[in-house]
Amino acid sequence: MQEQVCLPEVTKKRMVQLLQILKSWPEQKITSADISNATGWKDTLIRHDLWLLGYNKGVSNGYQVSDLHRAISVVLEIEKKANCCIVGLGRLGAALLDNQIVEGSSFTIKAGFDSNLYRVEILRSTFPLYPASEMSRVLKQEDIKYAILTVQAKDAQQMCDRLVNAGIKGIVNMTNATLRVPENVKLENLSILNALKLVI
Amino acid sequence: MQEQVCLPEVTKKRMVQLLQILKSWPEQKITSADISNATGWKDTLIRHDLWLLGYNKGVSNGYQVSDLHRAISVVLEIEKKANCCIVGLGRLGAALLDNQIVEGSSFTIKAGFDSNLYRVEILRSTFPLYPASEMSRVLKQEDIKYAILTVQAKDAQQMCDRLVNAGIKGIVNMTNATLRVPENVKLENLSILNALKLVI
Repeated sequence: MQEQVCLPEVTKKRMVQLLQILKSWPEQKITSADISNATGWKDTLIRHDLWLLGYNKGVSNGYQVSDLHRAISVVLEIEKKANCCIVGLGRLGAALLDNQIVEGSSFTIKAGFDSNLYRVEILRSTFPLYPASEMSRVLKQEDIKYAILTVQAKDAQQMCDRLVNAGIKGIVNMTNATLRVPENVKLENLSILNALKLVI
Repeated sequence: MQEQVCLPEVTKKRMVQLLQILKSWPEQKITSADISNATGWKDTLIRHDLWLLGYNKGVSNGYQVSDLHRAISVVLEIEKKANCCIVGLGRLGAALLDNQIVEGSSFTIKAGFDSNLYRVEILRSTFPLYPASEMSRVLKQEDIKYAILTVQAKDAQQMCDRLVNAGIKGIVNMTNATLRVPENVKLENLSILNALKLVI
């Protein structure tokens, strides 16, 4: 395994999908043909991805599923426990208040935030909810490094800036807004409307 | 404008984001430097994208915002009215029942589906909800070509197959499952958990 691996984003995305497949794979071994059947990716692409990862333990009758899963998790650093939060408790954010979306993963949702105090008080959640004004304090106290942003598009950049100032490392942006973040903060855009425009 | 434009996926994604920016741009003109400031993309990349689009009406003091918006919309074909549906009315799907996510766009949500009849009867929605067994009939009747998939991961491929058989053209997959679709069906993966893994 290489020490520092800088994977292309497309490879990372495929590897994250591959992890999901490995997790529920019923056998001990998986071939690149099996992976190709499950995903539609070409054999050669899969082998190239694994080579980029520094994984070369494939044998003619396939990869060991558990070993491959561990190797990908290590390179992507997703075995480490990671705390995240939900920012914006409107209809979409409120749908994420039960930790179900991170179930079975190394992520824990530690907090939810909203500028609307009424929502913070009235909503039921499996983790504590706070006014947005407490964001900086709570993020430090709970060691929260990742955020799912579900505010209205018009408030998105402002909330994003607050998260960045509070030391966030990664943001999943579910708003339609285009966000600016510093280079050391990672951003994934998950706007449903933009996705619809891409499947036309 | 070229007749048939085959844009790289990355360019399409940037163009969809650019549309959002143009929509709320306060002035009549926008320069590639303005776009670069708002997005972080390099000037040269933006100009290359617009060249791929067949758009070459830039002048030294910028692009006409309305003209650029129209040109991108035409190439991406997102000016046409398009009907979509929500499949899976659990917590996440139920959060999308008010058409808010497609507000101001050319999309209309025409139907929601769930295998659970209780949910179909009890949930309040601005559009009709149906049992999943009626999917094929409703899709044809309402001319629904696009779907947002919010079922549980274990049911995702089965529901996806039903949508494909009913003639769906594009699916936004919000589950953690990796889906197989025929080549003529477009797929965008919007798993929140997978996105979190990518911002680590």
